[in-house]
Amino acid sequence: MARRKKVYEGKAKILYEGPEPGTLVQYFKDDATAFNAEKKDVIEGKGVLNNRLSEFFMDGLASAGVPTHFIKRINMREQLIRAVEIVPLEVIVRNRAAGSLSKRLGIEEGTPLPRPIVEFCYKDDKLGDPLVTEEHIIAFGWASQQDLDDMVALALRVNDFLTGVFHAVGIRLIDFKIEIGRIYDGDFQRLIIADEISPDSCRLWDVKTNQKLDKDVFRHDLGNLADAYTEVARRLGVLPRNATQMTKPTLIN
Amino acid sequence: MARRKKVYEGKAKILYEGPEPGTLVQYFKDDATAFNAEKKDVIEGKGVLNNRLSEFFMDGLASAGVPTHFIKRINMREQLIRAVEIVPLEVIVRNRAAGSLSKRLGIEEGTPLPRPIVEFCYKDDKLGDPLVTEEHIIAFGWASQQDLDDMVALALRVNDFLTGVFHAVGIRLIDFKIEIGRIYDGDFQRLIIADEISPDSCRLWDVKTNQKLDKDVFRHDLGNLADAYTEVARRLGVLPRNATQMTKPTLIN
Repeated sequence: MARRKKVYEGKAKILYEGPEPGTLVQYFKDDATAFNAEKKDVIEGKGVLNNRLSEFFMDGLASAGVPTHFIKRINMREQLIRAVEIVPLEVIVRNRAAGSLSKRLGIEEGTPLPRPIVEFCYKDDKLGDPLVTEEHIIAFGWASQQDLDDMVALALRVNDFLTGVFHAVGIRLIDFKIEIGRIYDGDFQRLIIADEISPDSCRLWDVKTNQKLDKDVFRHDLGNLADAYTEVARRLGVLPRNATQMTKPTLIN
Repeated sequence: MARRKKVYEGKAKILYEGPEPGTLVQYFKDDATAFNAEKKDVIEGKGVLNNRLSEFFMDGLASAGVPTHFIKRINMREQLIRAVEIVPLEVIVRNRAAGSLSKRLGIEEGTPLPRPIVEFCYKDDKLGDPLVTEEHIIAFGWASQQDLDDMVALALRVNDFLTGVFHAVGIRLIDFKIEIGRIYDGDFQRLIIADEISPDSCRLWDVKTNQKLDKDVFRHDLGNLADAYTEVARRLGVLPRNATQMTKPTLIN
């Protein structure tokens, strides 16, 4: 196999050119970062788990009629996706207060919110992905009002779906982040879910014990991150077949 | 305990006056009926399972911010609910063709639909709960256009949530039926999910085998209905503690 062209490398994933125009190969790394990459580590097996979990969530969303970039999983660490033009916003949905919301507004972590709250952050590592308002987004042309309305609707559908998924396995979905991409068909534009959905991008608390099963385990040194993600995958019945390979990053050429 | 006043008795449930104004006690019977009660049987334990399962789904919907009539489970067969004014419509959401849609439109059971389809049937046993259009509904005053828009939105949220719940446990949500009730606060009206959500009111197929885990098992004599419902409850981790009691209807005074 010829060496593929790397299109983009982020903190947790690499994108390669795909086999067909309009496709990409998304490779999940084991790298974990937090606090805008001030804290870093390699968590063996994380990429394998997130590849499977993102497949599982995206597949389910598709079955509910929510469009995503996911086409198929290729191997332990890679999936084929549609190439999209990423909207430069992180879309966050919060069901309970946690993280930056708790800090910024002085609300204790775990406090139920009056309704799900959708937030947008401008995707810019140098700026630390700052919170922005619809005014900023429209004024700077990152998205139109129609895009924003569509993104809120998509994000709330993902919230209903994921709340259901986690409710079935005794996990409370505190909040999550998604990214959204544009695809074009002639003059038409469509917004679809892109990036990944995994315990890297959700806050997941065990319903009974409030044990954290997400990246906060890494952020705040609460235990073994791979164990937490494995627990999520186990409950959802999506552990990789060959779980021993999980801890050995697959070499790709 | 004094004998409670029976408010209503349906095919699968009885409603009693509740302890507080505005509440009712919903009792789940073991009676199974199909084809507008032309086919009848008693399935020991069904009421116990549906009481638990409806609690589980309604609890999850509440956590996602979807309002329901459910207050709390009281015992094996009873739950406390809010008294509502039932909208006289069955609201059906279909993800794949099955049942009356397959029959009426000649679409093979299991065929994925282009998008989730919401149908309304007029609740009238004597008429066999006939399919109605928005024109009928508004003309006859069963609901306003605003009510209908709200009901469709609620039904699609329930669909996203339930699709997620069942996706997590290897079950495909083919379709389901809900009922919706009105509650009043002064001049304001609000629509909330009422009745029950259970394998009596959903079509549930195992993702891998297409095995039916819902009332079609009874409708079409495909096996033991209690076993099918127990399998659903087992996968969702909501089997009654004392599962032996399941087969012994609890006597209530």
